[in-house]
Amino acid sequence: MNVMQPEVPEVVVLRLPLYVRALTQLEREGMNVVSSQQLGERLQMTPAQIRKDLSYFGRFGKQGRGYSIQFLLEELREILGLTGEWRACLVGVGRLGRAIINYTGFAPEGFTIVAAFDSSENQVGTAVGDLAVRPMSHLPYVVNEVGVSIGIVAVPAAQAQTVIDRLVESGIKGILNYAPVAPYVPRGVVVRNIDPVLSLQSMTFYLKNER
Amino acid sequence: MNVMQPEVPEVVVLRLPLYVRALTQLEREGMNVVSSQQLGERLQMTPAQIRKDLSYFGRFGKQGRGYSIQFLLEELREILGLTGEWRACLVGVGRLGRAIINYTGFAPEGFTIVAAFDSSENQVGTAVGDLAVRPMSHLPYVVNEVGVSIGIVAVPAAQAQTVIDRLVESGIKGILNYAPVAPYVPRGVVVRNIDPVLSLQSMTFYLKNER
Repeated sequence: MNVMQPEVPEVVVLRLPLYVRALTQLEREGMNVVSSQQLGERLQMTPAQIRKDLSYFGRFGKQGRGYSIQFLLEELREILGLTGEWRACLVGVGRLGRAIINYTGFAPEGFTIVAAFDSSENQVGTAVGDLAVRPMSHLPYVVNEVGVSIGIVAVPAAQAQTVIDRLVESGIKGILNYAPVAPYVPRGVVVRNIDPVLSLQSMTFYLKNER
Repeated sequence: MNVMQPEVPEVVVLRLPLYVRALTQLEREGMNVVSSQQLGERLQMTPAQIRKDLSYFGRFGKQGRGYSIQFLLEELREILGLTGEWRACLVGVGRLGRAIINYTGFAPEGFTIVAAFDSSENQVGTAVGDLAVRPMSHLPYVVNEVGVSIGIVAVPAAQAQTVIDRLVESGIKGILNYAPVAPYVPRGVVVRNIDPVLSLQSMTFYLKNER
């Protein structure tokens, strides 16, 4: 998916934000240095797995000395592209979409929802948070003029693929999809599905033998 | 994490629900047979990866004939433990918790929220959907008497670890965590974090070179 660093498995990339979160917590708890053993306990991973994951990006710790939490955090934020602002737009301002816009967890992490769209004429022009809901026809203009990289999809399942196609046509490169579908996107576009059912279904694999 | 099938990598288990979803969609579209090529296009994976993932669980297709969608769906549902009902309880009936209880996507997939808990006296006794909110002290009783396997955590970050500890002490084996923390759980307990920020942070890795 990533032409610049083809050697990094996606599963490693998916774990890096967990490292960032755990390291941020450890830093808040007053720690300066952490061993791969301690980090592994926090994340339910083996120290070897953590060392191997980080080895894709260089050397971060000295043998037997552990990692400097501050340095490792800075490096991981750089690697993940978390050092600047990312602009997102949201499509679908129903109950879920409005909850997403009002969610306070995005902004502190550098993600800003700068525009909201809806296909319903009843919704266009209404206010959601600080945003006025725009018609879908404004999408290409806003994406390009405002510099939007990420599209958040909060429409019903039946409309999700159409909306995602339009986001991609407008130049969006990342899709955060809340609709319960497995969407198709062309190569070069990254999709992340937020779907509690998928999470539960991969959990029951481990629980089924205890039932 | 799973003592019965230690040879299946977790990353494969995480993909199986995506297969179930894509196959369900293909079945709805009227298809009976699907090739690993077609499934791969739908899921942005190589046919080889799909064949390798499925090979952990046996042989599902004939060379050159593709997979029977109905058969593969039945097998994957069996493998994932999706053939019966799973009972969940929810802790934290704030705005997010109430949205989760009212979410209509769980029940059709066999997941039922049978109890809701909150530590606030103001919430205990109020109704959320069909449920009366219970005090946390009822947790061990309800988990054991009603047969609850899964705990859904919708409390603020600062309370999440304490709540998760109490769920685990009560016998819960699976945690669906909506709080933005990396929780600690003992071996044998499975955690899935629902966190849009983590998803965005693993997306920007791929987007950062285009910015």
